[in-house]
Amino acid sequence: MQPVLDYLKQHQARFVAELGDYLRFPSVSAQPQHKKDLLACAQWLVKHCRQIGLEARLCETAGHPIVIAKTKRAAARKGLRALPKPHFMVYGHYDVQPPEPLELWTTPPFEPRIAGRNLFARGSTDNKGQNFAHLKAVEAYLKTGTPLPCDLTFVLEGEEEVGSKNLSTFLKQHRTELACDAIVVSDTGMPAADCPALTYALRGIIAFEITLHGPARDLHSGIFGGAVENPAMALAHLLAKVRDDKGRIQIPGFYDGVAALSKYEREQIKRYPLSDAGLKKLLGSPQLFGETGFTATEQRSSRPTFEINGLTSGYQGEGSKTIVPSWARAKITCRLVPNQKPAHVRKIVCSWLKKNCPPTVRMEISAGHGAEAYMVSPTSAAAQAALRALERAFGTKPVLMREGGSIPIVNEFKQVLGADTLLLGLGLPDDNAHSPNEKFNLDCFENGQRLSAFLWPELAEPV
Amino acid sequence: MQPVLDYLKQHQARFVAELGDYLRFPSVSAQPQHKKDLLACAQWLVKHCRQIGLEARLCETAGHPIVIAKTKRAAARKGLRALPKPHFMVYGHYDVQPPEPLELWTTPPFEPRIAGRNLFARGSTDNKGQNFAHLKAVEAYLKTGTPLPCDLTFVLEGEEEVGSKNLSTFLKQHRTELACDAIVVSDTGMPAADCPALTYALRGIIAFEITLHGPARDLHSGIFGGAVENPAMALAHLLAKVRDDKGRIQIPGFYDGVAALSKYEREQIKRYPLSDAGLKKLLGSPQLFGETGFTATEQRSSRPTFEINGLTSGYQGEGSKTIVPSWARAKITCRLVPNQKPAHVRKIVCSWLKKNCPPTVRMEISAGHGAEAYMVSPTSAAAQAALRALERAFGTKPVLMREGGSIPIVNEFKQVLGADTLLLGLGLPDDNAHSPNEKFNLDCFENGQRLSAFLWPELAEPV
Repeated sequence: MQPVLDYLKQHQARFVAELGDYLRFPSVSAQPQHKKDLLACAQWLVKHCRQIGLEARLCETAGHPIVIAKTKRAAARKGLRALPKPHFMVYGHYDVQPPEPLELWTTPPFEPRIAGRNLFARGSTDNKGQNFAHLKAVEAYLKTGTPLPCDLTFVLEGEEEVGSKNLSTFLKQHRTELACDAIVVSDTGMPAADCPALTYALRGIIAFEITLHGPARDLHSGIFGGAVENPAMALAHLLAKVRDDKGRIQIPGFYDGVAALSKYEREQIKRYPLSDAGLKKLLGSPQLFGETGFTATEQRSSRPTFEINGLTSGYQGEGSKTIVPSWARAKITCRLVPNQKPAHVRKIVCSWLKKNCPPTVRMEISAGHGAEAYMVSPTSAAAQAALRALERAFGTKPVLMREGGSIPIVNEFKQVLGADTLLLGLGLPDDNAHSPNEKFNLDCFENGQRLSAFLWPELAEPV
Repeated sequence: MQPVLDYLKQHQARFVAELGDYLRFPSVSAQPQHKKDLLACAQWLVKHCRQIGLEARLCETAGHPIVIAKTKRAAARKGLRALPKPHFMVYGHYDVQPPEPLELWTTPPFEPRIAGRNLFARGSTDNKGQNFAHLKAVEAYLKTGTPLPCDLTFVLEGEEEVGSKNLSTFLKQHRTELACDAIVVSDTGMPAADCPALTYALRGIIAFEITLHGPARDLHSGIFGGAVENPAMALAHLLAKVRDDKGRIQIPGFYDGVAALSKYEREQIKRYPLSDAGLKKLLGSPQLFGETGFTATEQRSSRPTFEINGLTSGYQGEGSKTIVPSWARAKITCRLVPNQKPAHVRKIVCSWLKKNCPPTVRMEISAGHGAEAYMVSPTSAAAQAALRALERAFGTKPVLMREGGSIPIVNEFKQVLGADTLLLGLGLPDDNAHSPNEKFNLDCFENGQRLSAFLWPELAEPV
């Protein structure tokens, strides 16, 4: 193991430069104009994986391509029937969130910049930096000739930020090739650079968009205003009904099946080293706000939400335009928790919205992606192995936590491949994932490589 | 008079072509990038006014320039002290509303297109076509050598759509030059091409923008959602409180001083030849909606409103972006009726909004333009003269009406120049003022010229 660790230590500067190359691709999966940038990024990944000694290929899908990179299998190398080795899969994604609003970035989102121990760029923490840490660890094994105690397969997709819509089909098509003992994903967070974490639960999600249509065109608000519904006002009325001023969603059935947190879970959550005051400062909000009866950490990890992601109506340019807008739109996502079924929640939410839509406007709902929440036992052998690797890599006792984000594909892994996923996030709370000035901490990058190096023996040869 | 009418009849084709030239200037006063287009349009107007025999000049202001064009005064022509002649002012504006959303225009907004008896272009009805009709009438007088029974001054400004912010100073500076017996403005509507109208009241306006600030930046809705206020949701809550589901504004004091319509006024309004069913069809809205207890025509002419002109928050591009937006904004205008003071209404509305803003967000309010409502007696000599001219020009009895739009400067005329304004609108309800596919009816254009021709003798030599 020591040569692996030494190799990692020696090559940090090059690794950071390579990560910079990876981050320069504007691989924004939500924006059609970036299609060719996603392809170029995937091709760069294939080439890079081959350079470090993996067998890599680009797999076309109906959307953006998937990169598969594998350690050379024993059987293939020796021409003999190999002894069965454990097989682990590392999942990550090379697509990134849209960088808008661009004017809030200190430097351009696709021109990586280092300041202190932070590397700034869109996709640095979510998820390029995190998956690249795993690639660098396997490079250290391969380049130092240190035998890996397991077979590894990297699956790096390009549609995570738009709901992984083609990965499911791909998994089913490659079920045999990808059959494995566990999946490792670093696409979540850790509370602080010196506080590693194993995430044992994730929230699910449903996305949709509602548009309220009023007059056939924008109207002069002087000539017609007062005698016709304003769709923006109708939208305000509808959305305001969704949540009360105690942060509770008012849609009947929304909380059906949501399990209360156990005493053990509440205790684990209490160990999370970010106070409400610290969170408030981090967010820069006038004050924290959430469902009454829960701590902020509980609210954002263990409770479902109804979130407006965007509003659009009428005139948004400079100055004023005196119109009654023809339509008003809200982009919505609900975060779900274990036991909430996305299809069911979508149905009750959309039915409720339709029922509560005033007759003065016509409602159009378009459905986006959806994913179930995820939960795995933190006492399983794999989880325990991961906790040991975390402690060795970071030199400190890791925390167990739930996280509020969604990794839609994790449930799919369980369903299609029958394997649990270990969520070993390397992102920090102030990394600005999905926000302007996204960054990745270079200590997390380096310790993440060490984590990956320690992980394979721990997983392959459990105590 | 007959030579004037004959001249108008003979030159319609050229007049329409000239109006097309006028409409080709994208003179959008709200958008700074069009500053040079406004100047070019004003210069074109000066040149055109000189060609038809007026003394014209361009007057710089702190904003867009004002065009002044006058008939040659008797005194100046003869070198003698002139007998006092009545003096009337014609006011219009050469600036236009923003053309967005462009994709809803059948043909480009600044490429005039004729279909049947309609001329399509931004600014065609509001207000270039209407003020051009008056210019063509005076051209007919001057080119046929028909003596005008009055002096005329045209004031054509470039900031009507942004609140006429420099016209007030200009009026005060030119108080003596512009002193007149009455002002004529064609910038309102008539119910139908065969139903001319004198508008005796206009609504006032206040414009403002509210922005609710939440977190310091857009946040990942998975990592943080649930523990922090969503500014878009806070905005929905705040706006929904403003109006109840009976269309009544809930801000205490909002209706203070609003006079009930008299029996005479209600009867005049009933003569307005557009039924609720006709209005619904015109607007293309699922149904009409307004304050309970008033007809649609009353609601849009005689009642105050609180209108959302635009909403902006978070991500508005294609696909979804899972964020808690950092801020949410609403552009608002309130239409006011006689006896409501803009400054007072602005104060109570803004105070109420601040008081009702939840502590989870920080509110920023920026004030836009404002103007008082206007009302003039329909039994005055000038109004009676205008009614006679309307009947002669259109060959049918005109209606008396209130209109819901605002012409902020009309009160200023009364205050600074001490003169009443005659509102002789040539726009039709389906002209799409402020909307995509704005048009001007060419019959209204031609009859508008005749109206202007008949008007000066009627006004100068009242019965």
